[in-house]
Parts: sequence; structure tokens; C-alpha cells
Amino acid sequence: MRTSSSYQLPATSVVALAGGVGGAKLAHGLQMALPAGALTVLVNTADDFRLWGLYISPDLDTVMYTLAGVANPETGWGVAGDTWQAMEMLGRYGRDAWFRLGDRDLATHILRTQLLAEGRTLSEATRDLATSLGVENSILPMCDQAVQTLVQTPDGTLDFQDYFVRRRHSDRVTGITFRGIEEATPGAETISALDSASVIIFCPSNPYVSIAPILAVPGMRDAIARSGAIKVAVSPIVGGTALKGPASDMMSALGHEVSPVGVAGMYKGLVDGIIIDELDRELAPRIEAMGMAVSTTNTIMKSDGDRVELARHALGFCESLARRTEVAR
Amino acid sequence: MRTSSSYQLPATSVVALAGGVGGAKLAHGLQMALPAGALTVLVNTADDFRLWGLYISPDLDTVMYTLAGVANPETGWGVAGDTWQAMEMLGRYGRDAWFRLGDRDLATHILRTQLLAEGRTLSEATRDLATSLGVENSILPMCDQAVQTLVQTPDGTLDFQDYFVRRRHSDRVTGITFRGIEEATPGAETISALDSASVIIFCPSNPYVSIAPILAVPGMRDAIARSGAIKVAVSPIVGGTALKGPASDMMSALGHEVSPVGVAGMYKGLVDGIIIDELDRELAPRIEAMGMAVSTTNTIMKSDGDRVELARHALGFCESLARRTEVAR
Repeated sequence: MRTSSSYQLPATSVVALAGGVGGAKLAHGLQMALPAGALTVLVNTADDFRLWGLYISPDLDTVMYTLAGVANPETGWGVAGDTWQAMEMLGRYGRDAWFRLGDRDLATHILRTQLLAEGRTLSEATRDLATSLGVENSILPMCDQAVQTLVQTPDGTLDFQDYFVRRRHSDRVTGITFRGIEEATPGAETISALDSASVIIFCPSNPYVSIAPILAVPGMRDAIARSGAIKVAVSPIVGGTALKGPASDMMSALGHEVSPVGVAGMYKGLVDGIIIDELDRELAPRIEAMGMAVSTTNTIMKSDGDRVELARHALGFCESLARRTEVAR
Repeated sequence: MRTSSSYQLPATSVVALAGGVGGAKLAHGLQMALPAGALTVLVNTADDFRLWGLYISPDLDTVMYTLAGVANPETGWGVAGDTWQAMEMLGRYGRDAWFRLGDRDLATHILRTQLLAEGRTLSEATRDLATSLGVENSILPMCDQAVQTLVQTPDGTLDFQDYFVRRRHSDRVTGITFRGIEEATPGAETISALDSASVIIFCPSNPYVSIAPILAVPGMRDAIARSGAIKVAVSPIVGGTALKGPASDMMSALGHEVSPVGVAGMYKGLVDGIIIDELDRELAPRIEAMGMAVSTTNTIMKSDGDRVELARHALGFCESLARRTEVAR
């Protein structure tokens, strides 16, 4: 935790850990709340996979499209106004297009695949693409090595997209592993961003398959722990369920309480505080009893206004925690 | 030339040498005129190139889309009703999309690239794609090896698509070479199709950059010469100019007469006869004086009816040449 007396807000260096849609929304709020260049979004890449020979990085895409202002506002993923001609043609070729890629979206995958084939790292390819789309903040993959989330179910081990998209996360999850994680390593930019961060925010992404892979990269937990930043998490569980996706089912299946208390338990020792929704206000004392600060606000981001308000609330919470730390000295 | 007394029409085995739009149209006419499975289209692949990491085969695509009935009727190339979302997105990424790939068309390139990456030959990939689209005749690349047409101009040597698409074939052509042709070889299916063909038709494609590369594959000329088939060419030059593309400019620049006489000169010794347009009727005696039979008809294919009529005319011409050969025995 940060103790330097030079600490000042507005934070000049914020790192946000993010997965897909929920994380991208808060990252977008932070982008709107902060000066250009102050934000680094550290993104899960354990969902990445190859399809039709193309390298697909669902979470990097969602974060990039959202920060670039081109995300599909209805789904939260994919490109606004996209069409499906290529997928329909794949269907004519008798191919099962179970993972649907929009025509505009395809341009991203084609370019990224080409950049990687030319020998660029995923970090370099991501910077090229994001910069080209006008994103002024940094988007960093959690690592440049291939890591793959595998989901254990009673039917056997499934690739993540198979579990998540093809089987619509309907299987009971008995375990989650990250293949290749031992060989992964945070990039130099990641270490530098964490070292110099004044604030680190764990976005309201799935703790098991979005945030956990980032934290599982060898050296990442240490780099976060070593950072002098104030660290807060935003609970993705609201009113006893996840706003999106299978997080609550996973918590339940894996024996965690499906509530911000369960989320707090997963991040205990890593974060100084947690932001929970007003709906869960009565759970605050239980989390505080775990030694974590709690702040309540509306965490449901339906509009751009909601995003920037939650971002400002999170930054303000960090400021108050920084002052509390100051006083404690 | 075929001398067997068992020769019968309708021809049961026809090989058509083709490049792009003009060749595809006549191939389509032959498909309509013949029983399913009787046609093999041998296609130029010296225009093939990689773009955005994707393997693009313009002539194979044009022939396949045309035979599958999905070709864009206005351009002759690309897929009917295609859209350009992916290219527009590439533009947002600041990429120069000088070679425009439609969204439906992209599915073809993505699938073919994946099949090749998995170790399939171009012949195998082509069969997979064409069969999936319901094409009942054979489409064969001229070879499975990489061959690249290079165009010499006063500004230097240009890749074919650079010359043809990006610079809109406006450069003066001083020479044409086929890089890699020494290593190319006709596939077993090609040799078998030529051996068993009763008719070989040189479609009205560009003699320099569509038909010449096919003939330049080592062993191809011999296989054609060895075949007992009746061989006829359809002149791509009508009324002193090419119906499409740079063929007439090339003929002129390379010192050939821009007329069916010039075309006949290029195919002399390879074909038994040549079909010229009614507009060029008065040139027939000059071609006959070269030792080639001549037939005149409408060769301008504006409708499906025109295509099948030209095909039937070509097959009838072959039949008459076969009878003449019979009589000559």
C-alpha cells in the first residue's frame, strides 16, 4: 500500500485489470475520468484461441473496441453496426460457424494474425491496432505467451470457448486450469505500469476466468503486491448473481458464497478495499470484518454516464484510502 | 489430334484452360452444355498472392464462383451481393485496402488459407471449397507449386496484382516472366484429365498472363500435345481489342498483331482450330493460311444464353474437326 507523502489525486497512473464486457465498461469509465495516457488496462488473454487460422483475443478486442468507441452498444462485444456476410458464406461452405465473427471484427483478427505471423508480440500487435483506432491509453495483454483456460466439467475438460460459447456455459464447473501459465511472464511494460501506478483497480470481471488468469501469470501477484498503489476491486456480483456470464454459477459450483463477500474472500490480501453495489449494502460489515475497506455505490453500468460515475467513485475511494494510509502513518 | 474411330459427341471429357472472367464464362457455358462431371477446368494460378496473410487465388475464385452460380453478375468476379465491411474496418486501422476483398469473398480466402496451413495442397483445398459450394465439375489449379507472374515495365518489375489492380494495368509491358515456374509440375489429375480428354478448349482468357502460365508449367505442353483430344482456342481479341483487361495492350507492346491472327500465331502448333468473332470474319483466310481451322460465331458472352451457345458452338466445331480427321484417315 502506498505511503509516500507525495501521493496526489487525480491519479496520474492507473492500472485496471480487466476481462470482457464488464471490465471494458469500467476501463472506459476510467478513460473518460482520467487525462489521456493515464490509464493502462491489463487484459486477460487466457480466452484467446485460433479459429479458421485466425488469432482471436476476445477480451483484448472487447477492451479495445470499447476504449475506441466502436463497440457494439447492444452486446458490449463486437463492433457497432457489424454484419455477418463472411459467416454466412462459411455456412455455405458447410462450416459450422458456432463462434460468430462479424465482418468488421474479422479485419481485427486478420490484421492481428498477420502481425503475429510477421513476428510481432501480442503486446506489439495490440499497441499497433489500438493506436490505429485512436486509443490514447495503453492496452496490455497479461502476457505474450499462449495461455489457455481449460474448464473441468462432469463431461470432461473443455476449451474455454467451447464451454462458454458453444455450450453456452451450461456445464457444471468442477475446476479451472490455465494451460501454459507456468511459461508466461508479465511484459516489461506491465511491470513498469504496476510499479509506477498510484491506483490499481480490479474491474468487475469474472474472478475465475478473467482476473484469476492475470494474477496467475508468474510474477504478477508479486508485482501487484510490491506496487505502492492503492488497490481496490469492484465486485462483479450484485444482489446474489453476476450481471453477465457464468461467474455466479462458478462461485456456487466451486464452493464460494455467491456474494461480494465471496468476491472479497478471493481478493483478500491483494486489495485494500472493495466496491460493492448499493443492493449489497448490508454485506459491508462482513467484508470489513475481513480487514478490507468497503464502499457502496451503483455498480450497474447501463450508460456512459454510469461508467464514468463508477470510475470517479472508484478513484475517490482510492483517494480516501490513500489519505487514511497517510493518517495511519 | 484424335484419330480413334470411337470418337463420339457429346464429348464425355472436356478440359478447358481458363484464367479469369472471360474463361470462367465459357467454362460456365460448357458446364451448362455438358453432363455433370464431364468438365475439367484447368486454371491459371500465377496471379495468386498473399494479402493480409491470406492466400488469394483470383482466377480459381472467379471460376469457382461462376460455376457455383454465386459470382457477382456485374463484375464477373467476387460474390454476388457482397459487402465491404471488413475492408472499411481495415481502412479505420489505417491500412491501404488497394485490393478490395468482399466480406463473403473473405470466407473463401480464410478457409483456403487454413486448409493450406493444415498441409493440404492447392488442388485439395480447391476441391474441398468447390465441392462444398456444389460444383459438380473439376476445377484444378495449373499446379500446386507457387508460381508468380512478374511484369516488366519501364518503371521496373512489378508483381502482377501491383501492375493489374493497384496500377490499373496502365504501365507499358516490356516482358512477362513466371517466377518459380521451373519447379512447377502438373498434378496427376491434370495429366489424367488431359490424357482422357476428347476436347481441350483454350478459353478466351488473356494469352500472356492467363493461358501462357498454364502452358509454361513444365510438362504441360507435352501433355496437351500428347492428348488425342481435338483442341480449339476461342480468341479473346474481338474487333481489334480485348473484351476485358490488358491483353490487347500487351499484344501491341510485345509486337504481336492485335487481332485473332495474333492470337492464332501464339497458339499455332498447339490447337487444331480457332473460334473468332463474327466481327473478325474477314480474318479467317489469314488464319487458315497458317494451317488452322477457323470457325466464326458470336463470342461476346453477355448472358448465360450467350455462354451456353458459345460452348455448344465450340463443341460442335470440335465435332466437325474430329469428323474431318476421321475422313482424313
